[in-house]
Amino acid sequence: MSVNIKEYIDEYREILDAYIKKTFSYKNHDKALDDLHSVFRAAGGGKCIRGSLVKLGYEIAGGNSDERLLPISAAFEILQTSLLCHDDIIDCSPLRRGKPSIWKSIADEAGSYHYGISQAICLGDHGFISAINLISTSDFPHPVKLRALDLFCKVIRNTLDGEMLDVQMTEARDYGDEKRIIEIARLKTAFYTIIGPMQLGAVMGGKPPFNEKLLSDIESFGENLGIAFQIKDDILGISAEEREIGKSDMSDVIEGKVTLLIHYALENGNKVQRQKLKELYGKKDLTRDEKSIVYAVFKSANAFSDAERKAARYLEKANEVINKLTNNQDHQELLSQLSSLMVERKF
Amino acid sequence: MSVNIKEYIDEYREILDAYIKKTFSYKNHDKALDDLHSVFRAAGGGKCIRGSLVKLGYEIAGGNSDERLLPISAAFEILQTSLLCHDDIIDCSPLRRGKPSIWKSIADEAGSYHYGISQAICLGDHGFISAINLISTSDFPHPVKLRALDLFCKVIRNTLDGEMLDVQMTEARDYGDEKRIIEIARLKTAFYTIIGPMQLGAVMGGKPPFNEKLLSDIESFGENLGIAFQIKDDILGISAEEREIGKSDMSDVIEGKVTLLIHYALENGNKVQRQKLKELYGKKDLTRDEKSIVYAVFKSANAFSDAERKAARYLEKANEVINKLTNNQDHQELLSQLSSLMVERKF
Repeated sequence: MSVNIKEYIDEYREILDAYIKKTFSYKNHDKALDDLHSVFRAAGGGKCIRGSLVKLGYEIAGGNSDERLLPISAAFEILQTSLLCHDDIIDCSPLRRGKPSIWKSIADEAGSYHYGISQAICLGDHGFISAINLISTSDFPHPVKLRALDLFCKVIRNTLDGEMLDVQMTEARDYGDEKRIIEIARLKTAFYTIIGPMQLGAVMGGKPPFNEKLLSDIESFGENLGIAFQIKDDILGISAEEREIGKSDMSDVIEGKVTLLIHYALENGNKVQRQKLKELYGKKDLTRDEKSIVYAVFKSANAFSDAERKAARYLEKANEVINKLTNNQDHQELLSQLSSLMVERKF
Repeated sequence: MSVNIKEYIDEYREILDAYIKKTFSYKNHDKALDDLHSVFRAAGGGKCIRGSLVKLGYEIAGGNSDERLLPISAAFEILQTSLLCHDDIIDCSPLRRGKPSIWKSIADEAGSYHYGISQAICLGDHGFISAINLISTSDFPHPVKLRALDLFCKVIRNTLDGEMLDVQMTEARDYGDEKRIIEIARLKTAFYTIIGPMQLGAVMGGKPPFNEKLLSDIESFGENLGIAFQIKDDILGISAEEREIGKSDMSDVIEGKVTLLIHYALENGNKVQRQKLKELYGKKDLTRDEKSIVYAVFKSANAFSDAERKAARYLEKANEVINKLTNNQDHQELLSQLSSLMVERKF
């Protein structure tokens, strides 16, 4: 086992991608249907962080049969594609992972926006069901699978609640409540990015009675790291190059995305700055110059530094849990590297 | 047990509605989220055909603990609400069961179409997960629950494939292939209306090794009845009053819905009639007079009578399976009444 988290993830990605390619080839007899399903499959192939965290949680809990774990890790990767598929409809995002998003790709082909989102809604639904079925048909004891399904359902529910809260606050242009902004990050990001994969792995690596202390330590670790990750993601979203983040650096501003940055900027900014933000943040036909103004206001109102500080605090809390979570030094090392990697976004 | 299918359904609906009301009250701590979830819950309360068919399948397989079955029947009712929730977005249907559909209700409240569909996508997703979780946490032996989940996943997949095929053919205005039109009815209607509920009930009422012959007889019965039901539904969709069907009698024509009626009308009609249909079928700003023209062409090209004949043939095939499916005369009687009721739509 590699104790370099990048290698750990990269090695597993290759194995998992090959497994998904081989097994997740749902075929109907109808060409039109097959073509649609293949758009969903082609949208996979992310960084495999979640799949790898399933493996890490599994190993921490004492699991040692990699083969058997593959459908479980695959379930998380497919779940992610489904969540992003629906999220991209909701956010009207034309790009994902540097390629056209699922709805966009189908819409372009047919020349119809509504057709694109209609099929993408169904494909996302399909993915949820495929992911669940991968768990229910996997080669683990029945009580393990049923506990895993319970957990998986909880993770999806929390993610959806986070998404709904996000959509609601974005629509209401409600940037005033820091607690709710953090709650979005916890529900929408932490659960399906870290807590869910690691807990699922830990359940698969155990047997009843499950190690509830481990599951709760994972939640505490993942919650803090997930929130730190989301804050850093929001910072990158407005400051990084398109090729680095696979989407336009304008899109969060155009969307009027609910982030700690806009929260702090409105809180710290003076009257003129607040007025500018109210005018430009969420503007559908934002120009590049206007985006630069938003960026400059964020900067001068210390939104970036305040958010960075907040992220650092959550990261610190995550790191404090690592030694409680496992005694295995290799696993501790991997978790600690994971923390840094996720907030530095150097992968 | 009542051997009148209407009473059988009505009695169970009361019990099941009360159960769903009591248990399906997913509450977050956030008022905005709770309000959104309550829109989904309020959209339930259908005719309870599917829930009742879970019960009937269960009883046919020898099941006798009604209490334990409630979450399973509830799962099917909630699944239906989810499927309709997403279907109404896809079809742009503002009405469902005589009330505003979920997306429409949220969109109206917020004054934003996109907001309505965004939250409705998430609420539909939530429903799928709730339904699955009701099965996975129910009080049946593990192997029964896992087989049920497998079956449930298959039913949802088929329904989604049927929907995707429907959407694809509607977009392409492809009304020429009768086999694909029937395939839509089989996948999209028969599975989640009859086959799925009855098979799920039958699995819950049995134990491994499951009665595969019964499951396959149910499929044959449900496939034929489901297709007959869909054909009759399409006939009603263009000929019945809004208050009878809970939606406008114009909407199938405006949508350009793929039905046997339009297929037969194009096939049987003369050149002038075909031209009229091509002009009016799927016209977004259809007038009431134009709808009447479509209706008149359907009538004079024998589309209704051809479709009626087809439905009758499928109904006959369904009825032929009843005696193979069960020896219990009460159950036979209920199934036979169900057949008539579903194609006569007198409930």
